[in-house]
Amino acid sequence: MTQQDLRIGIIGVGMMGADHAERVARRTSGARLVAVSDPDVARVTALATALDGVRVIDDPLQLIADAGVDAVIIASPGFAHAEQLMACLEHGKPVLCEKPLTMDTESSLRVVEAEQKAGRSLIQVGFMRRFDPEYAALKQLLDSGDLGRTLLLHNVHRNKTVPETFRSEMIVRDSLVHEVDVARWLFGDEIARITVHAPKPTSLVGDGVLDPQFAVFEMAGGAIADVEVFVNFQVGYEVRCEAVAEKGSATIGLGVDVLTKRAGHWGGAVPDDFRVRFGLAYDIEVQRWVNAAAKGEIDGPTAWDGYAAAAVCTAGVQSLQEGRPVEVEMVRRSEVLG
Amino acid sequence: MTQQDLRIGIIGVGMMGADHAERVARRTSGARLVAVSDPDVARVTALATALDGVRVIDDPLQLIADAGVDAVIIASPGFAHAEQLMACLEHGKPVLCEKPLTMDTESSLRVVEAEQKAGRSLIQVGFMRRFDPEYAALKQLLDSGDLGRTLLLHNVHRNKTVPETFRSEMIVRDSLVHEVDVARWLFGDEIARITVHAPKPTSLVGDGVLDPQFAVFEMAGGAIADVEVFVNFQVGYEVRCEAVAEKGSATIGLGVDVLTKRAGHWGGAVPDDFRVRFGLAYDIEVQRWVNAAAKGEIDGPTAWDGYAAAAVCTAGVQSLQEGRPVEVEMVRRSEVLG
Amino acid sequence: MTQQDLRIGIIGVGMMGADHAERVARRTSGARLVAVSDPDVARVTALATALDGVRVIDDPLQLIADAGVDAVIIASPGFAHAEQLMACLEHGKPVLCEKPLTMDTESSLRVVEAEQKAGRSLIQVGFMRRFDPEYAALKQLLDSGDLGRTLLLHNVHRNKTVPETFRSEMIVRDSLVHEVDVARWLFGDEIARITVHAPKPTSLVGDGVLDPQFAVFEMAGGAIADVEVFVNFQVGYEVRCEAVAEKGSATIGLGVDVLTKRAGHWGGAVPDDFRVRFGLAYDIEVQRWVNAAAKGEIDGPTAWDGYAAAAVCTAGVQSLQEGRPVEVEMVRRSEVLG
Amino acid sequence: MTQQDLRIGIIGVGMMGADHAERVARRTSGARLVAVSDPDVARVTALATALDGVRVIDDPLQLIADAGVDAVIIASPGFAHAEQLMACLEHGKPVLCEKPLTMDTESSLRVVEAEQKAGRSLIQVGFMRRFDPEYAALKQLLDSGDLGRTLLLHNVHRNKTVPETFRSEMIVRDSLVHEVDVARWLFGDEIARITVHAPKPTSLVGDGVLDPQFAVFEMAGGAIADVEVFVNFQVGYEVRCEAVAEKGSATIGLGVDVLTKRAGHWGGAVPDDFRVRFGLAYDIEVQRWVNAAAKGEIDGPTAWDGYAAAAVCTAGVQSLQEGRPVEVEMVRRSEVLG
Repeated sequence: MTQQDLRIGIIGVGMMGADHAERVARRTSGARLVAVSDPDVARVTALATALDGVRVIDDPLQLIADAGVDAVIIASPGFAHAEQLMACLEHGKPVLCEKPLTMDTESSLRVVEAEQKAGRSLIQVGFMRRFDPEYAALKQLLDSGDLGRTLLLHNVHRNKTVPETFRSEMIVRDSLVHEVDVARWLFGDEIARITVHAPKPTSLVGDGVLDPQFAVFEMAGGAIADVEVFVNFQVGYEVRCEAVAEKGSATIGLGVDVLTKRAGHWGGAVPDDFRVRFGLAYDIEVQRWVNAAAKGEIDGPTAWDGYAAAAVCTAGVQSLQEGRPVEVEMVRRSEVLG
Repeated sequence: MTQQDLRIGIIGVGMMGADHAERVARRTSGARLVAVSDPDVARVTALATALDGVRVIDDPLQLIADAGVDAVIIASPGFAHAEQLMACLEHGKPVLCEKPLTMDTESSLRVVEAEQKAGRSLIQVGFMRRFDPEYAALKQLLDSGDLGRTLLLHNVHRNKTVPETFRSEMIVRDSLVHEVDVARWLFGDEIARITVHAPKPTSLVGDGVLDPQFAVFEMAGGAIADVEVFVNFQVGYEVRCEAVAEKGSATIGLGVDVLTKRAGHWGGAVPDDFRVRFGLAYDIEVQRWVNAAAKGEIDGPTAWDGYAAAAVCTAGVQSLQEGRPVEVEMVRRSEVLG
Repeated sequence: MTQQDLRIGIIGVGMMGADHAERVARRTSGARLVAVSDPDVARVTALATALDGVRVIDDPLQLIADAGVDAVIIASPGFAHAEQLMACLEHGKPVLCEKPLTMDTESSLRVVEAEQKAGRSLIQVGFMRRFDPEYAALKQLLDSGDLGRTLLLHNVHRNKTVPETFRSEMIVRDSLVHEVDVARWLFGDEIARITVHAPKPTSLVGDGVLDPQFAVFEMAGGAIADVEVFVNFQVGYEVRCEAVAEKGSATIGLGVDVLTKRAGHWGGAVPDDFRVRFGLAYDIEVQRWVNAAAKGEIDGPTAWDGYAAAAVCTAGVQSLQEGRPVEVEMVRRSEVLG
Repeated sequence: MTQQDLRIGIIGVGMMGADHAERVARRTSGARLVAVSDPDVARVTALATALDGVRVIDDPLQLIADAGVDAVIIASPGFAHAEQLMACLEHGKPVLCEKPLTMDTESSLRVVEAEQKAGRSLIQVGFMRRFDPEYAALKQLLDSGDLGRTLLLHNVHRNKTVPETFRSEMIVRDSLVHEVDVARWLFGDEIARITVHAPKPTSLVGDGVLDPQFAVFEMAGGAIADVEVFVNFQVGYEVRCEAVAEKGSATIGLGVDVLTKRAGHWGGAVPDDFRVRFGLAYDIEVQRWVNAAAKGEIDGPTAWDGYAAAAVCTAGVQSLQEGRPVEVEMVRRSEVLG
């Protein structure tokens, strides 16, 4: 369906953006990658050359404004998001923005307000877990009511290792943030209070980094979610979620694929990083966003979801620093979204 | 990449063909569905209307010949395959042909010879298991040599139920045929001898139908594969494969996804049919075939694989009828393919 | 080895005590059940008659004092434990006391002090999880140091249902108490602080009962354990424990036994109560206690473990009532045990 | 229950017999080990000394005849069984005989006939799998009829390694024999025909040894069982059984215990040998045999079961040698047992 192909520009072609470029160019129906932008000229040129027919546009704001670009994927560093999102709103371009929406609660709120003023849903935030078939099946099961009301959520979120530059607060803002969205989405409720415990850290991490962390979310409606985040787990990448409801429980993320037996052991492989575990989720996320954007809609987490996540993470960092439960401060949804 | 989009025509829009139509139209990059053909006029018209911009071409041979069609997917009944494949070869059109290649060993051999004479690889057969991520991982593991030489293959292939018209021989030709291809592919070897045992049938099947069946393949190189095929298993669709090698074993198809606990039980769902289990495999198969066909190549099972499967199934049906091991009769590969 | 058979008396023959009677009489080597005591005359007489050659002694203190009784199992209600334990110490009789040691921290401490004064280890407390092969394997793995230091413990403890008389505080004192002992034992450390969260309760429980509960233990050495206790889970009995260490994790209690597939589901049975899950643990506990008692030793949790559990549960009940973290108050071990 | 303690003598104190000695002396209620016999004087003396109060009797026939011995466990080499069993029958002593009953079909039949003539059930054969809780649960499930009639049985029987002296025929007679009993027991039916396939052997075995082997049993009633026996699997000891019935399937032997995650892998340990997997089964077998023998009964596989297993294995060895299906030759049960 040639004439309707959505012409997409991508801002930022680091690991995440390059992945999306490949995805749009090779595995997405109804879309064409037409432009990329990145301050690293060598990197962006190499990528554009490899993906035949893609223009390099130096200035990301120009990419957003370009008449040949129908929709934008933002995969630039978080500090650049606010300005780029505002530009997308100004030009009326649908945008899929990698998390975080912006770097702090206040600027996130301004984005929400600007979109509201613009009067169109243009911004989708890249919480890709919602598109993972396992999370989606869990959501469907819980929403079906078959198990009664959901009471508790136990989450595990582990990385093999992270760079030394990854500090304690980033564990909250970059890792825990996924479970913040998961808990809000699965419960359909806001997080009212958060406690982030810092147990005695693993010795396999630099001085002063609090890893693992253990968070407890108290939802506005009284349910509880707990999360272990452990970014230097050594073993590999592991994300698990168990929902406990009145009449049963459900667990996803067990990761059974090929079961091998060798040299005294049975079991399987734990992948090194999130691309193995969530590669399909990203494919589905982008395909569904393309399908929706072509109709002027979004089909996933909204700017509000990005704002709420920012508010919870801000409280989480404070809890980590002060060693006590912290109330989450947010404006009321109805105040902003009417 | 508009100008290179592969224009695809589909022959037969029953369950399988309609699935492929949806797949090509909505989830395949670099391809466009342009034409469909089916004797059921209402069905094909409805489908073409739903998928905007698709032509109905009554005569499948005309679809193949049409200048606006670059490549063909054959999902018609097996008896029509031989003629349609020959037409594809004549017009030099790449074709993805659902199994079986043709209905008998002789006509399959003629197709192999015709393609050989044409001098181009145009025919790919739809043994989609090779594209399933789990089978692909198993193949990669076995080929890596980590476990030593593969000695045995245990297979289970179960359907919830099949229509009453599904007779004993069809269990061999339509179900067991998948494991025939799997065994040939995983071992990289031909099947020399086959025994199909018919245990006392389940009472939940019509009179005279031998279900389940239990087959033993003796590979030319001395390895053995066994297969349980049970098409009225009642539980759901289940496909499992365990490879046993000199230094370990590997099993796929365990089907762990969402683990639930309710009312005295832990466990998960067994899907009703193959579309849940192998939906992703079909997506990958078609995307890779499109990518290859655009370059004039194929990327999957060949016409020879279709011929070999036909020869094994013919011997299998004879074994079932005569209650004894039967040697598989095939021409030598080098005689035909040089 | 007839002459050394340990002659055992059991006080209390309710569910737990009757189980132990059967165990000693039928499945324990080197022991003989010689006497039972219970206020319910009909029940105790029936049991003594069924187990040929067992005397009924009305007064439990007389059973303890009886010259024909070498060792005692206390399975009476908790409020009777203090007096009966003191009598065992007085008569120098080895005793296996079902939990709790006594009903409160103070009386537990007095028992510890009395045993210390007696100068012999006579009291073993019935925390049977330590004898469960899975918990024992977990303990061995963690102590081996293969996984590095243990950082976190995630526990799940679920009952199908409990009687209506089971109140919120009992969930702490009778259920959570097992994980109190597990955490102390696996970490080899005392619990310094406890938070018991009460999420919005399941609707399938009487008014005012806080179920499920979610507890966080902060160990003196900085590790953390969390526990979900849910005594009206409806599904069945489930106890799971995951230890997270610096270089890996280990989980027990998965409960895979017979894997069935039927009517759209794969999975297995969740047992109704703890006797299925921990029956073998009780057998091992009693056999090892008999073997040790015959040599004047104990081989399991001590009176101090009973005291520590009481102190933690007291703090836990306070936390539940006051909705905040509570410090655990205990005397120093060295003050009492030297 | 001192006066009724069953006084047991054990013949043969190799690995199996020494295990039983420990079991009777330390973990069996209602029994006392009083005598042992073994040609290896050093070994038998050491064992008798370690287990205080046990006599050494040089001549096994004298042990059987001894007035202080109530019941006998035979764990001597198979060639000695026939004479020792006949002596047990002569002296009216209950006997638990490790498999095989005897070394060949003819002598097994003579033992069956002699017991029949003696008019008392004295002989129990050590097919301990029937006492494994998982096999017992499987048997119960199949017999309940919940899954309908059982159609197929898939078995896997793997050892880590065996000594070089373990030849091809021993794989049938010493390993496969367990599945022979399992199939007869689970189906409640005799094996009518057996095929033992010898795929190209693993390279990790001495010349001329056919390992693995793959056997197909055709039951008299039309059901089928298949068995992989692989005695040099390298990985560890693994025994699995899947029953396929009209309305579902059930699998045991999955061996999930402690689930660990470390260094890129999830999974658990495969034990080195059968003592880990079946230790509990042996405990239950011996305890139940002791309980039954004290009442002059047996509670497990009979001499007939030993005879039938011998007949099937004889046919199996012939099939292995001749490369074809072989009919099992047995007398009719009613001819011998009336």
